[in-house]
Amino acid sequence: MSVQLTRPQAGADTDGLLLGIDFGGTKMAVGVADRQGRLLTRQRVPTHAEQGARQALDRALELAAKLVDEVGGPLLAAGVASPGVVRADGIDLAPNVPGWEQLRLAEAVRNALGVVDVAVDNDLNAAALAELRLGALRDADPGLVVGIGTGVAAAITVGGRVVAGYRGAAGEIGYAVAGGPWPGTMLELDFSGRALDGLAAELGLTGGAAALADAAERPGPARAALTARLDELARHLVTSCLLLDPQRVVLVGGVSGSALIRGLLVDRLTEVLPHRPEVVLSRFADDAALLGAVTLAAEAVPVGG
Amino acid sequence: MSVQLTRPQAGADTDGLLLGIDFGGTKMAVGVADRQGRLLTRQRVPTHAEQGARQALDRALELAAKLVDEVGGPLLAAGVASPGVVRADGIDLAPNVPGWEQLRLAEAVRNALGVVDVAVDNDLNAAALAELRLGALRDADPGLVVGIGTGVAAAITVGGRVVAGYRGAAGEIGYAVAGGPWPGTMLELDFSGRALDGLAAELGLTGGAAALADAAERPGPARAALTARLDELARHLVTSCLLLDPQRVVLVGGVSGSALIRGLLVDRLTEVLPHRPEVVLSRFADDAALLGAVTLAAEAVPVGG
Repeated sequence: MSVQLTRPQAGADTDGLLLGIDFGGTKMAVGVADRQGRLLTRQRVPTHAEQGARQALDRALELAAKLVDEVGGPLLAAGVASPGVVRADGIDLAPNVPGWEQLRLAEAVRNALGVVDVAVDNDLNAAALAELRLGALRDADPGLVVGIGTGVAAAITVGGRVVAGYRGAAGEIGYAVAGGPWPGTMLELDFSGRALDGLAAELGLTGGAAALADAAERPGPARAALTARLDELARHLVTSCLLLDPQRVVLVGGVSGSALIRGLLVDRLTEVLPHRPEVVLSRFADDAALLGAVTLAAEAVPVGG
Repeated sequence: MSVQLTRPQAGADTDGLLLGIDFGGTKMAVGVADRQGRLLTRQRVPTHAEQGARQALDRALELAAKLVDEVGGPLLAAGVASPGVVRADGIDLAPNVPGWEQLRLAEAVRNALGVVDVAVDNDLNAAALAELRLGALRDADPGLVVGIGTGVAAAITVGGRVVAGYRGAAGEIGYAVAGGPWPGTMLELDFSGRALDGLAAELGLTGGAAALADAAERPGPARAALTARLDELARHLVTSCLLLDPQRVVLVGGVSGSALIRGLLVDRLTEVLPHRPEVVLSRFADDAALLGAVTLAAEAVPVGG
C-alpha cells in the first residue's frame, strides 16, 4: 500500500492523525488523514449487513487499527458516520443492518483504538459537513444533500451549519409516506438501492439496481418500473426543495451515480418547481460520508491538541 | 374606537409608532403598535381578491393612514406581510389575488404614509418571526409554521432565525405535487381554504370550508371527502417534519382553527412519524402575520430611531 505522508503546515499545532469511519448498509470505509484532514490512506470493505452489526463493527475497527498502525503517528481524534439517528447509548432508525441500533459506536472506537475524542454523527449529516467545508456547499446556502445508497436520506445546511434537528433526526426522508392510499408505504421501501435491487429481481434482472438502471436506458418494462418509483422519490424531493428553497442540491450515494437516474430526477424537479435549484453530483463520489467523518474528527480535536 | 396609548418604557429611545399590514387572500389586517411592538389598535377588512390587487392595496393604505392618524404620533417604520415571494420590484407566486405580483409594496407604503423604513416579507415568514419573538417558537428549535388559510404555505426557523431560502421562497409547499400519477395536482388546489370552499360547494354545502368542517364532524360523505384531502396534506407535512425534525409545529390560518381538521392532521402525523413533534395552534389566531408585520417594522427602525 502506498502511503504519502505530508508535513504539517506552518502554524499547525502538532503533527498527528485523524481517523474517519463511514458505516454504510452495503460498504464500510475507513480512512486515515493528517492533522489538516488530507486523506493519507483509505480502504473500503463490504458490510455483510445480513450477518449483523457486531461483526461489521469488529472488522471496521480492526481495519482502522491496521491503517493507523501502517501510517504511524499519534491518533488525535476519530469521526464516525453512521446511518440513523445517533444517540449516546445507541442509534435510532437504522434498519438496514440488524443489531446496529444497539451499538455504542463512540465507546467502541475509544476502546479499540485508545483515542479519547470521538465524534459520531449521521452519515448524511457527515456528508453534508464535507460538502460544506470542502465540496459543493462551500458557496451555496441553504444546501440540501440527498443520499440514495442502500437507503434514502437527506441532510440540510443553513448558514454554514448542518441542521441536526430537535432529536438529531433531520433529513430522515426515507420514512416519508409514498404511494397509494394513506398511509401507503415508506419511501425507502419504494426507492433506494435496496428497493431497486428488489425491483430488478422482480423483473428477472440479475445485477440489482445497477442492472435495472442499465436496462432502463431503453424504453420498456424496466424503464417504466423505474420511472414509476422515481416519480415517488421526486414528489418528496419537490416538497423538500419547496420547504427549504436550497441554492444547490447535492446527490450522494451509489444509486446517484447513475446518470439516467439523475437525469430523470432533474427532469421531474424542473417540471414542477417554480424555482429550480442547481442539482449536482457530489464530486466525492462514494467518499462524501468518509470525508465527513474525517472532518468530524478534525473538529473534535481539542483546541491546542 | 377605544385606543389605549402606553407610555414608552424607561430607556426606550423615543416615542413613536409602528405600522403593520398583513395582506391575505381573503382578509387584510392593519395594526398600529407602540415603539415596543404592543398593538394599540387594529382593524380587519375583506380583500375582495376577485376585484384585483390595486383596490385592495389602496383600501389597506387608506385604512393605515386613518389608524395612524387616530392614534397620533410619528410613524417610525412599517412592516408588510404578503403572500408569495417578495422581491424589490414585485412579488412571485401569489396567485390568489389577481395583479398582486406586479405590486411594489414597500414603495407604495412609503409614498402613501411618508415613512422611510418599510420591511416587506412573506406572510408565513412574518408569522414565524412573530412566533419566534413572541409566541410558540420562543423556546423551540427548529420550528415549523404551517399556514392553512386561503392558500397553504409554511415557514421554518433554525437557530432563532426564519430561514428565507436562496430566493426568499422557503416554505412554498402549496406547490407540492399532490395526488395520483405524476405530476398530479398542486397541493394548494387540493387542500387550502379555497380548495375546501370548492369541495363544500361540490358536496352541496353552503358556507364553504367552515360548513364542510362542521358536516365532517359526523361520518358521511363530507368526512370522507375531507379526510381524503387531508391525507395528501399530511403526506407533505410528514416529509417536511422528516426533513427538518422540528421541535414544534405551529398551525396558523383560518382553516387551522377547526379542531376537527387539527385533530385529523395530528392523528396522521402520529401514525407515521418516528419522532413526533409537538403540534400547537398559534395563540395569535388570525393575527400571527399581522404581529409579524409589526415585528418586521420594529426591527426595521434604524438604530437610535
